[in-house]
Amino acid sequence: MSTDTPSPIRPTDDEARGLARGLIAQAQHAALGVIDPDTGAPMVTRVAFGCTPQGQPATLVSDLSHHTRALKANPAASILLGEPGPRGDPLTHPRLTLQAQVRFLRHGEAGHDEMAAHWLRDHPKAKLYIGFADFSFALFDVQRAYLNGGFGRAFVLTPDDLGF
Amino acid sequence: MSTDTPSPIRPTDDEARGLARGLIAQAQHAALGVIDPDTGAPMVTRVAFGCTPQGQPATLVSDLSHHTRALKANPAASILLGEPGPRGDPLTHPRLTLQAQVRFLRHGEAGHDEMAAHWLRDHPKAKLYIGFADFSFALFDVQRAYLNGGFGRAFVLTPDDLGF
Repeated sequence: MSTDTPSPIRPTDDEARGLARGLIAQAQHAALGVIDPDTGAPMVTRVAFGCTPQGQPATLVSDLSHHTRALKANPAASILLGEPGPRGDPLTHPRLTLQAQVRFLRHGEAGHDEMAAHWLRDHPKAKLYIGFADFSFALFDVQRAYLNGGFGRAFVLTPDDLGF
Repeated sequence: MSTDTPSPIRPTDDEARGLARGLIAQAQHAALGVIDPDTGAPMVTRVAFGCTPQGQPATLVSDLSHHTRALKANPAASILLGEPGPRGDPLTHPRLTLQAQVRFLRHGEAGHDEMAAHWLRDHPKAKLYIGFADFSFALFDVQRAYLNGGFGRAFVLTPDDLGF
């Protein structure tokens, strides 16, 4: 059944928690939703995705990009994780929506170098630009998450459920 | 280079128009960004994606879903199209961000049956629920689009560029 099939929210269980944590741990890119400062409307773009050494969701962005400008004006963000594979119904593939507030981790700030080294393990191509002055990490302070496990398996998760 | 590599907007050319139109024509699912009516924050979910017989972007949603409730409160939406393949750098894969206003096309309204027949050609599994009373089409009246063609090839496109 589709993502949109009426589905009551199920009680959160360890299987849902494990599925959500796995989606976060495995994702290499994501769809990022921000509020466009020019229009107040939502705007979705693709970004790289990874975690801090402590497991917090993060991305690496340039000050020159539209979404970074948006997040500086309004730190409210959403992240969609869990890419469908090349086969099967994409709407039955598990995915996770995070709602979060963003804070930036910049060159020279405490923890930046450790984060950069951690990031490069999973995103080796980022070595081409991670050192540029306009690049910084955006860390997602997650407030809540919506897990769609496929087949109408919908859950609302807390930061605790995700291990944050 | 990454999506976030500083990249001036290039003058729109026929290659960019063709790439964007192809992404719209081929997409079967997309990331939908809406404003969460409970918080005012962005929220990104995965939805089915297709076009009307006239080529307008559309999705099929249930009144019971969170994003439909959001769109009824605020019709501003964004769509991210262009899924990376299983190989290669996802941040060099072309993708298109649409900014649009949504209007609904419901059962019994002019054009609904033609749209439903058109939709089922590309989304045959939707026959399980397309007839349910709570399902309707959300049509995207596109206001502007941002094409990231990979390798810093960034363009801003108008509805005219997309053939709307």
